[in-house]
Amino acid sequence: MEVFIEPIGRLINEFSKLPGVGKKTAQRYAYKVVNMSEAEAREFADAILSAKRKVRFCRICGNFSEGDVCEICKGRDPSVICVVKEPKDVIVLEKLHEFKGVYHVLHGVIDPMNGVSPNDIRIHELLDRVKENEVKEVIMATNPDVEGEATAMYIARLLKPFGVTVTRLSRGIPIGSELEYTDEVTLSRALIERKEI
Amino acid sequence: MEVFIEPIGRLINEFSKLPGVGKKTAQRYAYKVVNMSEAEAREFADAILSAKRKVRFCRICGNFSEGDVCEICKGRDPSVICVVKEPKDVIVLEKLHEFKGVYHVLHGVIDPMNGVSPNDIRIHELLDRVKENEVKEVIMATNPDVEGEATAMYIARLLKPFGVTVTRLSRGIPIGSELEYTDEVTLSRALIERKEI
Repeated sequence: MEVFIEPIGRLINEFSKLPGVGKKTAQRYAYKVVNMSEAEAREFADAILSAKRKVRFCRICGNFSEGDVCEICKGRDPSVICVVKEPKDVIVLEKLHEFKGVYHVLHGVIDPMNGVSPNDIRIHELLDRVKENEVKEVIMATNPDVEGEATAMYIARLLKPFGVTVTRLSRGIPIGSELEYTDEVTLSRALIERKEI
Repeated sequence: MEVFIEPIGRLINEFSKLPGVGKKTAQRYAYKVVNMSEAEAREFADAILSAKRKVRFCRICGNFSEGDVCEICKGRDPSVICVVKEPKDVIVLEKLHEFKGVYHVLHGVIDPMNGVSPNDIRIHELLDRVKENEVKEVIMATNPDVEGEATAMYIARLLKPFGVTVTRLSRGIPIGSELEYTDEVTLSRALIERKEI
């Protein structure tokens, strides 16, 4: 006999598919669901279905959207485009309430080791946007890792002929941290990119 | 404008209700759902609904069950009853494949500080089982904490008049651990309950 009865075993299995969720955690989640009211469980299940059904990608920027074009593309300054790897990076930047331009979500970065070539991410779409619109600046906001840097460089080179300014988020010592605890790569980068004060 | 579009915000909110899940984790789970196929999302939602609908409590032992009476109560030796606090404790014990008797799930322990009195947990049902059946032994397997111990003692006293043997899981130094790292309460308990070899 299985240790879990079928409906609970099945739910544990589903929860185990979530990122970072092991058997134990999935079990706790499943018990929580069993202890919910009917209405709560329905709410939960419905939220999953509707997130899946209603969320698509903005035709222009590739970010999550309910409509064909997202709210950001509809209402903001299209002359500054911030290029990010994933939709979640948009969220991180939006939380700053600082950036007034629009985004371009690549849905990945160039990563030959894992078989991701420039054609596999939304670079072509970015070039089209720059070609067809009055774009003044493209901010490369891919992660400061090998793939992120390489992708930023690659795209910057492609954008050069269009006479658009291409910038990159600055890299250096995180604010509030200490020199002593900063890794060497970051520290040497901070030294190279030192600014006059 | 909200940072998340509505269907994603709603799903994040639902995931946040799971035990130990904060905003960040809920967000990761929600992205995972958005990236699932339609079929996968449906499977997930359906598992939640069916766990809620199909799982009820065994009329006899109070454990999770698909039917009126659970599989354990149906097929095993009813003369030995192991008393636990919660359904998840049954899982823990069943994984040992050691115990051949049946269970009794209290759904709580006596905890006056939090307003849980003996009438709030399934003690009455346990007494009925002992009264109406040929029960030889009741094993108290509540947690070795203050409430668990008190509940075990309380129930043991009630069971005395029925001439049934009441036992308690042994407490002591966990196997594989070291004296040096054993807390004092456990260590003194291990000393008091020392066994002749």
